Amino acid sequence: MDYESYFRKQIDGLHREGRYRVFAELERHRGSFPRATRHADGGTEEVTVWCSNDYLGMGQHPAVIGAMHAALDARGAGAGGTRNIAGTNHDHVLLERELADLHGKEAALLFNSGYMSNWATLSTLAGRMPGCVVLSDSLNHASMIEGIRHSRARCEVWEHNSPEDLDRKLAALPPSTPKLVAFESVYSMDGDIAPIAEICDVAEKHGAMTYLDEVHAVGLYGPRGGGIAEREGLMGRLTVIEGTLAKAFGVIGGYVAASAALCDFVRSFASGYIFTTALPPAIAAGAAASIRHLKASQSERVALHERVAALRARLDAAHIPHMTNPSHIVPVMVGDPIACKQISDALLDHHGVYVQPINFPTVPRGTERLRFTPTPLHSDADLDHLVASLSTVWQRFSLRRAA
Amino acid sequence: MDYESYFRKQIDGLHREGRYRVFAELERHRGSFPRATRHADGGTEEVTVWCSNDYLGMGQHPAVIGAMHAALDARGAGAGGTRNIAGTNHDHVLLERELADLHGKEAALLFNSGYMSNWATLSTLAGRMPGCVVLSDSLNHASMIEGIRHSRARCEVWEHNSPEDLDRKLAALPPSTPKLVAFESVYSMDGDIAPIAEICDVAEKHGAMTYLDEVHAVGLYGPRGGGIAEREGLMGRLTVIEGTLAKAFGVIGGYVAASAALCDFVRSFASGYIFTTALPPAIAAGAAASIRHLKASQSERVALHERVAALRARLDAAHIPHMTNPSHIVPVMVGDPIACKQISDALLDHHGVYVQPINFPTVPRGTERLRFTPTPLHSDADLDHLVASLSTVWQRFSLRRAA
Ligand SMILES: Cc1ncc(COP(=O)(O)O)c(C=O)c1O
Ligand SMILES: Cc1ncc(COP(=O)(O)O)c(C=O)c1O
Repeated sequence: MDYESYFRKQIDGLHREGRYRVFAELERHRGSFPRATRHADGGTEEVTVWCSNDYLGMGQHPAVIGAMHAALDARGAGAGGTRNIAGTNHDHVLLERELADLHGKEAALLFNSGYMSNWATLSTLAGRMPGCVVLSDSLNHASMIEGIRHSRARCEVWEHNSPEDLDRKLAALPPSTPKLVAFESVYSMDGDIAPIAEICDVAEKHGAMTYLDEVHAVGLYGPRGGGIAEREGLMGRLTVIEGTLAKAFGVIGGYVAASAALCDFVRSFASGYIFTTALPPAIAAGAAASIRHLKASQSERVALHERVAALRARLDAAHIPHMTNPSHIVPVMVGDPIACKQISDALLDHHGVYVQPINFPTVPRGTERLRFTPTPLHSDADLDHLVASLSTVWQRFSLRRAA
Repeated sequence: MDYESYFRKQIDGLHREGRYRVFAELERHRGSFPRATRHADGGTEEVTVWCSNDYLGMGQHPAVIGAMHAALDARGAGAGGTRNIAGTNHDHVLLERELADLHGKEAALLFNSGYMSNWATLSTLAGRMPGCVVLSDSLNHASMIEGIRHSRARCEVWEHNSPEDLDRKLAALPPSTPKLVAFESVYSMDGDIAPIAEICDVAEKHGAMTYLDEVHAVGLYGPRGGGIAEREGLMGRLTVIEGTLAKAFGVIGGYVAASAALCDFVRSFASGYIFTTALPPAIAAGAAASIRHLKASQSERVALHERVAALRARLDAAHIPHMTNPSHIVPVMVGDPIACKQISDALLDHHGVYVQPINFPTVPRGTERLRFTPTPLHSDADLDHLVASLSTVWQRFSLRRAA
């Protein structure tokens, strides 16, 4: 078999479908986020980033940067090993305590990414409980789907955000079967939010564990940034809360928070926890500083939600159609991969506005979109410039306006 | 089902088997590696680390630390997004170029860990080539096994380091079947080294791709630290070379280096590459600095191999039995999980020597061991102290001496 030409043919297919991904090459500048320098065609240009998941700009916060510099000087670059073999640093232990406290759980486990925390925890829980059935929301993130798939447990997919459908699917299973309900709080592409209380009601009724991905909510919602479950007083009802340190917290890493026994079980059996080098101490120290800051400070959350409302108001005034939802994510639907890329290119090349086109498989085909994520650091002038640029592009491409 | 008591029962089983893992909680100190402070029972004590995979002490090298401080100040803490959505930083692109150059390949892809690079690349290659059969060395690392398992491709396990068995297994497959031979160069637990040339001969004869994990070799072998394949002039014969930035390079992250088409294929289809936040720019900058340093400097490699020989000579003189092998890894076999833990505890508690007991599933049952990894930073006095401590413990536990 000619492997090279097979790979090239597959790539050609992506080009033909208009969903070949071109990464924008950026230089972030500490202190001037959301501004960045973009490298392209041998030159550079200044852009405003409108699609970062550094939702609060914590990636440049002095408390975070300071903690990382200090830990780098004190501890050095890497962790030195896997968690079991010379790699557990005091900073990891402190961070795991901070995370358990954030979610009101007995314990927490740190992973190298949110992807890894979902994949490793779900595959371990579902794979190591004989006969376990996973009940998975139909719009769950790739990392959850791959974790469930890896477990080889039976998986029932329930209608997105429908406790009624979940109830039906759970009722069809024998009471003695171990069951795990996996879902998210804020869905990052549509920005809708799960009815967590109703889902917990249904899960409890059928004796199922609950696993909640709060990746797009931690730091952003709840009085201490514990996420939607904290805001709604529901953390105690969830078996596992999963989150990332890479989005609102601005650094990198993922985690689960749960009972001491569950965490010890995952710690002891999850291949993806055991057989990989631990995060650098400076990363753990930076993430802990970010969490501590956002436990105490409301100003970033308040400013974020104000900026989101301000963007929505300006989009409405300019008749740019956007999806309403109760979160900080502002999707503008395009519905075609090629148009989506053209619009994004026009914004980038002519207006210095960087927003990545979102295509399949990140979202279903036919729902291609631009996904705007305003932050506390986007100024009024940034909002005005964005909406004026969108208006120009909307005109140029004769796109549909809102009523 | 009572989930909590199920988890507790599983943990109890590990305790009974003597393979419940207790992590040593360490504080590394930049500038005084291999010395560290250990936290235990509310107190602290100084230890010498003898089992780190920071093989060359690059985790505290001024070039690495300096690059990380500079990038942290210039770019901030996190990457800001996934590689596709606002997360590709100039530092990632530079690092991927550095890695492609290190292995003489057209391209390279950066992952959040070596675990992820193995898992995501193998599952994508094997899972997306219809009918692909994977030929996997019987001692391959967990991350490779899980990647192959995830692909659901057919997998044939061949006898460890046996080109003859590989030849037989390949010959039994139809010539038109896509085939992928996956193996490591330095096996980290026994320290033996694969016959790469012979394996390539066999793979080429049968038209199979080759995938080589050089995690425990990059930085350490070859004139520029390209690994065993570089040392033996074989890099051009391997389809994919995989490595980590977390061991000899002292930071964190993983990668594959291969043809441009193969890398673009994995970049475009690997869930574990696409759906996760990119590594922080400061991590990429630190890793690139480490690689650049080790491309030019021989002194760390020379010192490492001298220290390994010095330790082996002292162990021989003290009649402490150790496994001979052609690498930098010095395994001392114990063969029982409980004894292994007791010896390790005695070294730690009475001698300030930290070496983690290695038990199942990291190694097969009955081959439990201590695994020593001397570095250029272990002094003659450290070696003397280690061997004297081992002698005392050997006496105390009446362990077998070498002839
Ligand atoms: C819902 C969800 N879960 C998990 C992840 C993975 O988190 P991380 O980026 O930390 O790997 C993401 C996005 O990256 C996500 O959108
Ligand atoms: C052979 C091998 N491959 C891959 C890995 C994973 O690399 P990383 O620690 O960067 O995840 C390890 C150890 O951790 C390993 O021993």
